[in-house]
Amino acid sequence: MCWVDGQPADGLSVHDRGLAYGDGLFETIKVVGGRPELLDRHLQRLELGCRRLGIPCNIDVVREQIATFSAELAEGVAKLIVSRGEGRRGYAQPNPILPRVITLGSPSPNYPPAYAEQGVHLYPCSTRLAEQPALAGLKHLNRLEQVLARAEWQDSAYAEGLMRDMTGRVVEGVFSNLFIVKAGELLTPSLERCGVAGVMREELLHRASQAGVKTQITDISMERLLGADEIFVCNSLYGVWPVRQFETSVWSVGPLTRKLQRLVADLSSNP
Amino acid sequence: MCWVDGQPADGLSVHDRGLAYGDGLFETIKVVGGRPELLDRHLQRLELGCRRLGIPCNIDVVREQIATFSAELAEGVAKLIVSRGEGRRGYAQPNPILPRVITLGSPSPNYPPAYAEQGVHLYPCSTRLAEQPALAGLKHLNRLEQVLARAEWQDSAYAEGLMRDMTGRVVEGVFSNLFIVKAGELLTPSLERCGVAGVMREELLHRASQAGVKTQITDISMERLLGADEIFVCNSLYGVWPVRQFETSVWSVGPLTRKLQRLVADLSSNP
Repeated sequence: MCWVDGQPADGLSVHDRGLAYGDGLFETIKVVGGRPELLDRHLQRLELGCRRLGIPCNIDVVREQIATFSAELAEGVAKLIVSRGEGRRGYAQPNPILPRVITLGSPSPNYPPAYAEQGVHLYPCSTRLAEQPALAGLKHLNRLEQVLARAEWQDSAYAEGLMRDMTGRVVEGVFSNLFIVKAGELLTPSLERCGVAGVMREELLHRASQAGVKTQITDISMERLLGADEIFVCNSLYGVWPVRQFETSVWSVGPLTRKLQRLVADLSSNP
Repeated sequence: MCWVDGQPADGLSVHDRGLAYGDGLFETIKVVGGRPELLDRHLQRLELGCRRLGIPCNIDVVREQIATFSAELAEGVAKLIVSRGEGRRGYAQPNPILPRVITLGSPSPNYPPAYAEQGVHLYPCSTRLAEQPALAGLKHLNRLEQVLARAEWQDSAYAEGLMRDMTGRVVEGVFSNLFIVKAGELLTPSLERCGVAGVMREELLHRASQAGVKTQITDISMERLLGADEIFVCNSLYGVWPVRQFETSVWSVGPLTRKLQRLVADLSSNP
């Protein structure tokens, strides 16, 4: 299932700036029972991204398109791309900017249930995240770092890879955000310099606070990661995966990880 | 004029990873009299980029396509995009990878002759280039930094913008490379951490050496830039533009700039 600007279509103009420069943003949305999960958070991030990149996107129109698309998809993943639309050669922005909205449907990912139940093994990616405050936090279409990082391992024993920044700080997974638990407190890396501010990360920070858990957004060194009581990764498709192993360090699934896993287990029936 | 994989086409699959992740590379090639200028250098850079990104591209096929395309275009700009081709959702690479080759024709840019004759005024971009050695030098499709930098000025008094890295070193123009002349020596910034290694930069380094000019690839601080005897920017479309002004500093067009300008003025008749 593919729509371009709300109409079924398979193709896109070769002049689209999404192709030329990665000039756009995307969201990956879980669809359950015809409804997009965490839609408000997805659209908030998209709107912020559009504002920061200067893409004049009408979020109400996008909301309507994604709702209709999700109803038709019924079950699976709706990927939403907003590009700056077509342009002529050169970096200068088209005038007027006519953003393009692309929605793509895929089946739900088929992750082994053991990932959520027993935890995952993280691959230590050597590809580092560059520090670029102008783009940090956004889910933009410039994703070569993730492509290179994901290509580092083929062994299916690794469910995810851990990415660090140029100075060695722990930042996130290749397609997940990362949390650690230390002395009952929930910590997640700051994404002011690099990284994607995931909607599940936001949702978990919110729900943990509501449940009386102290939370902190901060820099996390490798030492701090290795000394954590619990570690987990998260995204809007799979929810929460406990981390069982990273290099030679091993963890058991901790109580706060289990609690948060339950809190976001069924967002569609428990919004 | 648009071709996809050697066939006239306007559209591209919405599943192309060039759109999804900027997962690909491009070249912007000047076409004169049906012939692509500096083609060997363009294809060498493309081949290096494909190797570094792990895109199994047959450069001989690309060479043939761009030659045929240029013959048909006759005059103007041939933009060549090589993407990793179609893929399903997720960063993991498709298996097999079937790269896609897109060629787009545009008219020659219509720059005022004064840019080359009297020199240009550079805009001081505040968007900084992130340091990412894994991607440095490549002309890849992740170009949001250039999009943001180019959006900083609308005033046509500025022909180009100067970009620096996160630590303040001078790196390049938004769509050009940069050279300075100091005491008869030609210097250009190192592109090991960020920046695009332009084919005109390579050509100029080569021709300057051949002409007995001492050349150096090195870090260039703002102080060094401001203390230069001559400054110019270059790319494969316009050749060489002397820099006349940057902020409050003013230069006249120097003898080495003029000499190099002449050396690359007519690459098609003087290969």
